[in-house]
Amino acid sequence: MQTIIECVPNFSEGQDSEKIEAIVQALLAGPDVYLLGKEMDRDHNRSVVTFIGTRESVGEAALRAIGRASELIDLNNHHGVHPRMGATDVVPFVPIKGATLADCADIARRVAEQTWRRFRIPTYLYEAAARNPKRKNLEHIRRGQFERLREEVRTNPERRPDYGGLRLHPTAGATAVAARKFLIAYNINLNTSNVELAKAIARKIRASAGGLPGVKAIGVELKARNLAQVSMNLTDFETTSIGTVFDAVQKEATRAKVTIASSEIVGLVPRQAIEEVAAHYLKIQNFHSDIILENRLARVIGAGT
Amino acid sequence: MQTIIECVPNFSEGQDSEKIEAIVQALLAGPDVYLLGKEMDRDHNRSVVTFIGTRESVGEAALRAIGRASELIDLNNHHGVHPRMGATDVVPFVPIKGATLADCADIARRVAEQTWRRFRIPTYLYEAAARNPKRKNLEHIRRGQFERLREEVRTNPERRPDYGGLRLHPTAGATAVAARKFLIAYNINLNTSNVELAKAIARKIRASAGGLPGVKAIGVELKARNLAQVSMNLTDFETTSIGTVFDAVQKEATRAKVTIASSEIVGLVPRQAIEEVAAHYLKIQNFHSDIILENRLARVIGAGT
Repeated sequence: MQTIIECVPNFSEGQDSEKIEAIVQALLAGPDVYLLGKEMDRDHNRSVVTFIGTRESVGEAALRAIGRASELIDLNNHHGVHPRMGATDVVPFVPIKGATLADCADIARRVAEQTWRRFRIPTYLYEAAARNPKRKNLEHIRRGQFERLREEVRTNPERRPDYGGLRLHPTAGATAVAARKFLIAYNINLNTSNVELAKAIARKIRASAGGLPGVKAIGVELKARNLAQVSMNLTDFETTSIGTVFDAVQKEATRAKVTIASSEIVGLVPRQAIEEVAAHYLKIQNFHSDIILENRLARVIGAGT
Repeated sequence: MQTIIECVPNFSEGQDSEKIEAIVQALLAGPDVYLLGKEMDRDHNRSVVTFIGTRESVGEAALRAIGRASELIDLNNHHGVHPRMGATDVVPFVPIKGATLADCADIARRVAEQTWRRFRIPTYLYEAAARNPKRKNLEHIRRGQFERLREEVRTNPERRPDYGGLRLHPTAGATAVAARKFLIAYNINLNTSNVELAKAIARKIRASAGGLPGVKAIGVELKARNLAQVSMNLTDFETTSIGTVFDAVQKEATRAKVTIASSEIVGLVPRQAIEEVAAHYLKIQNFHSDIILENRLARVIGAGT
């Protein structure tokens, strides 16, 4: 595959695994689509499916899943702690290889348009696919969730979908479609059970408080392990690397005389982000991927390695 | 290629690039052989060629190069600062993928045997290919170089080759063939011009002085940059990682109130070694390669990625 685009649709069903399996099967019922993972969360009553495809296949796969989800999930009967407005709630496209964020925005817009045309589900464009700068932020679009959006879309022009009219789909609601960069979910565990410290560090380092660009952070308590954790999303690891984040948390922790117990990457991390960590801590100047044996081999031997 | 074996022959010619080019062409004149690099050193009057091949191709490629080198290089007219005993001086085989060190020892022994049979060049087996434990160390075999070995091989049974008789090849001398693990050439630059400190650190950390296993180290002065450098070969990075070495040098430097300016990898480094550095400094528990996006993609999509 010369081009690889990731798609991470979220579905408003986290309890009935047969329904999620049916949606995944619809998604996979076409060429050049590969499943990377699926996670169901009972409390959130939500599932996150991760798959990859090509420029040609990834959007059609998402549309098959959106169609199937609209047959199986009825938001009128849905309850969960995670905010949602659609059976297929969000559909972000992420450039992985041979594609740009702009390419993914094009795909997102086409999927948004086709979701409305084929299934009569209104769609909103967010993040890098947004046409309206106010809609870059998903939380702004989803405010009030399915129940309130269903009312407000009729009367408030500000809440009108990018594709669709004055009514949400009666059971499938509305879907938000995006293009965004790869997101690294990264947590740092502190050698303390003091969750207030984790919260204070999160407030200090996160972008929204003027901290590190591309860092979302909260402080949480891991009761089973008796540890406080700084739980983060790194939305732009090329701007703020994992090493920079680790050093910033360590600096704040040291100030409070607390050490870092461990850290963890949830899900997947791009190779480049890991190579940058090595170059950062070893102070390797002019580090480039080509000094890595396997990369050189791949370049010399070609795709057949 | 399911199996990848690296071979790094050293030839006693570092000035005449046409000769080295002819040797490289001989090497490449067969299937499944790929050149990774070649470096000529005028002062050493020696060239290092790095290539890869399969279990079937790598030995024959080395033999073609050994044969061509014996036609082009005459040790009677060779002068250089690097010790040497043959036109093709050393031929180590290194397991990279789908092969073990024992596989490489088998290939090394066959190449050693065929070098004697085809070209009448006596051969010595060293490192993991050695049949005699005393011969594990190349320097022991090469003691006195071409000129003295040529005399001593006739009279001293201890200096007899593994393949061959009482005479070296009149112009091509003798060749040492080995199997060894991948070697990482790694240098750490200190924020001082005091080369005595670099030497003291090297003595402290190197395996031969009871320091870190698999670490060879010397202290050198980088005159142009006015820096002292700890220059190392890591011969077993799975036992002693790059991170462990960096920390050990940093600890000794800190004791002398000197910081590390930078570090550098010379040549290639296996991906695993870089991933270990990231896991080490981020304190990631249970780190495994499968959390790296590209590795997961390769596994899901298969060889066609």
